[in-house]
Amino acid sequence: MTRDLTVTEVRLTPILVADPPLLNTQGVHQPYTPRLIVEVVTADGVTGLGETYGDTKYLELARPLADRLTGRQITDVNALFGLDIAVDPARVDSSVDVGGLRGVLSADKLRLSVLSAFEVACLDALGKALGLPVHALLGGKVRDSVEYSAYLFYKWAGHPKGVAGEKDDWGAALDPAGVVEQARRFKERHGFTSFKLKGGVFPPEQEIAAVRALADAFPGHPLRLDPNGAWSVETSLRVAAELGGLLEYLEDPALGTPAMAEVAARTDVPLATNMCVTTFAEIEEAFTRGAVQVVLSDHHYWGGLRNTQRLAAICHAFGVGVSMHSNTHLGISLAAMTHVAATVADLDHACDSHYPWQSEDVLAERLTFTGGRIAVSDAPGLGVELDRDELARLHRRWTEDDGALRDRDDAAAMRVAEPDWVTPTMPRW
Amino acid sequence: MTRDLTVTEVRLTPILVADPPLLNTQGVHQPYTPRLIVEVVTADGVTGLGETYGDTKYLELARPLADRLTGRQITDVNALFGLDIAVDPARVDSSVDVGGLRGVLSADKLRLSVLSAFEVACLDALGKALGLPVHALLGGKVRDSVEYSAYLFYKWAGHPKGVAGEKDDWGAALDPAGVVEQARRFKERHGFTSFKLKGGVFPPEQEIAAVRALADAFPGHPLRLDPNGAWSVETSLRVAAELGGLLEYLEDPALGTPAMAEVAARTDVPLATNMCVTTFAEIEEAFTRGAVQVVLSDHHYWGGLRNTQRLAAICHAFGVGVSMHSNTHLGISLAAMTHVAATVADLDHACDSHYPWQSEDVLAERLTFTGGRIAVSDAPGLGVELDRDELARLHRRWTEDDGALRDRDDAAAMRVAEPDWVTPTMPRW
Ligand SMILES: [Mg+2]
Ligand SMILES: [Mg+2]
Repeated sequence: MTRDLTVTEVRLTPILVADPPLLNTQGVHQPYTPRLIVEVVTADGVTGLGETYGDTKYLELARPLADRLTGRQITDVNALFGLDIAVDPARVDSSVDVGGLRGVLSADKLRLSVLSAFEVACLDALGKALGLPVHALLGGKVRDSVEYSAYLFYKWAGHPKGVAGEKDDWGAALDPAGVVEQARRFKERHGFTSFKLKGGVFPPEQEIAAVRALADAFPGHPLRLDPNGAWSVETSLRVAAELGGLLEYLEDPALGTPAMAEVAARTDVPLATNMCVTTFAEIEEAFTRGAVQVVLSDHHYWGGLRNTQRLAAICHAFGVGVSMHSNTHLGISLAAMTHVAATVADLDHACDSHYPWQSEDVLAERLTFTGGRIAVSDAPGLGVELDRDELARLHRRWTEDDGALRDRDDAAAMRVAEPDWVTPTMPRW
Repeated sequence: MTRDLTVTEVRLTPILVADPPLLNTQGVHQPYTPRLIVEVVTADGVTGLGETYGDTKYLELARPLADRLTGRQITDVNALFGLDIAVDPARVDSSVDVGGLRGVLSADKLRLSVLSAFEVACLDALGKALGLPVHALLGGKVRDSVEYSAYLFYKWAGHPKGVAGEKDDWGAALDPAGVVEQARRFKERHGFTSFKLKGGVFPPEQEIAAVRALADAFPGHPLRLDPNGAWSVETSLRVAAELGGLLEYLEDPALGTPAMAEVAARTDVPLATNMCVTTFAEIEEAFTRGAVQVVLSDHHYWGGLRNTQRLAAICHAFGVGVSMHSNTHLGISLAAMTHVAATVADLDHACDSHYPWQSEDVLAERLTFTGGRIAVSDAPGLGVELDRDELARLHRRWTEDDGALRDRDDAAAMRVAEPDWVTPTMPRW
């Protein structure tokens, strides 16, 4: 019972992980994407793991935060959110940032995105120290597994010629048949029965056709389409009218709360978002205007697992559904998502996860989807262990990078294939 | 590290505790009031404490819940809220219930009021088992002490002649001078520097005069007045106009969200409530209509400490302040209130507590206010211990009661002194 929960060391390891050439409205994923692995070590030698965005602006914040965490108790998490960690204003006014895919990047969101990795690492360490799973530290699971949806992307067969990168066996998906084939593989490999298509890549007609093809191929399976705000209000309404009955929800058809509210007022298709409601400060306007019917939470930028539970409580109180958003992430974050999702009673939609697209991970053992679900671990902490050799290898890749990949830039990646590419002005259609 | 957190026994001990003759708009406190003490015992012999309302309708729910909790893990709290514990509909349609002082009594609120005691007891047991204070289980404290306000009541010197009851040394307070004298004692004895007067007892002019007297006697001290919805909208506005600058906030001047919204729309005095927002279901209408500026949370009927944190998060997101309501309670609940209050960053108002009015407690050592504050305990669990002899004595009082006091009834107590008393129809003024 005499244990020392003092943080004696915080290790920050930026890495680059392989990413397939997945398309979105801003461009294409680069062959490697930066992530930051956080290790919080206690006086007793227990290590907790966290993971978040690894771009330079997150690393800059993570270093001073790691210094402030050292010497504190791993149970002392609420107070971290009150720490005065300055954010360089230049880091949050970059309009071409791929962060645009998850809403406006404010100083607060940047700070929370870093804090979340420390919160998760502290919870993992605490759970390991106490012999309790993270979900038990959050009040306990209300389900034994968490459902995820297949995250379908328009995709090239490989990265552009001349670009170093890992090969993948998914092939290209650039038309309805390709999308259906990809979905079929997702179902075969992981058992997913709910499908989300990342849209905003091709003119709406083509994406409507892809969703129709999915509906034909997988009757009765929940379907979603997410153009990341690429459409005008009128286009959004046209797509909603055409796809209405086929969609579980339409995700961020138009950009920002006013446009979403206008769409919502004129269609019965539920609207989901991870772009216009991405911070607590954005909730009031969106909810009172009825702009969104489902909020896709993301523990990274909402500030951790307890904040995710709080967001879910707010959604519940306002009759708004809740599910989970995903950016490129590894198994530490998937485990964290699964633990918190297991504690939220009214999580009524399958969560998103990019994880099946990640061929590399820093875990000794990858998490696996069975029937599209991840089993909720009852092992201490998150229930995952680091593969230190793999972490070192991926960190070496980051160290050896000349800087070109240390800040994710989907537009830059696209310009390799299409030199004239500029980030589209929204609404694109 | 091998510990067994299974609940092997749940002890429910209804008690009657002494209560002074405090007046409110429904009547007067009876000489003894029922409370329920919950003890959750684990396989390892650790005992966690909780406390809630002890009226028959709560006891009826507590018994089946205790049975359902036995055999579960004390970490398995979220799932308790999903248990199907039936509530007798006859228990929630009694219009003269003193529960009216804390809003409409719904089946859900009744259920949460019972669950809260089990949640607190589980957290206390878990903290004791792990060697961690409850606040650490809630993410950690952000302050080392929690401020409370002096809860002033119009009061008789003693219970009506012929009524058995304990004596108190507070004397009567039935006019401005009496209220000021009471406040002076509160400040002397406990160091409170913030004062709340329970109103709705005398015509508004008299209560306005009492607040003015307090303002004269304690310049610069935050003041509040709470008539429990006894006033019409016009009366509320008149009081607000007369007391405006003197009040930190006006608490439940009028009954229900529509009336509160009307008052709020026509005054700048902030309105607080523990009557129109008492459940998550009531939040949306009240917040979107701007009916309240401060919600007074109460972990008993909001369903525990984590739900209190969630309520605070909702308030924060909507720019609504948060503080704490109090009904007659003992030290277990005061400790629980203090732990959760310590974790809520933007708790901007001193919390209410009846505790100074309770001369009896089931604790081995009473909690003490210093400078109007309770220090946040860093001892395992809630940091309080039962006095089993005192618990047994107060339980004996409950056992020996003929049923007259087992259900709190302030109107019945008032009828002893004023046989013609009927619960006033609201608005009373
Ligand atoms: Mg999205
Ligand atoms: Mg009140």
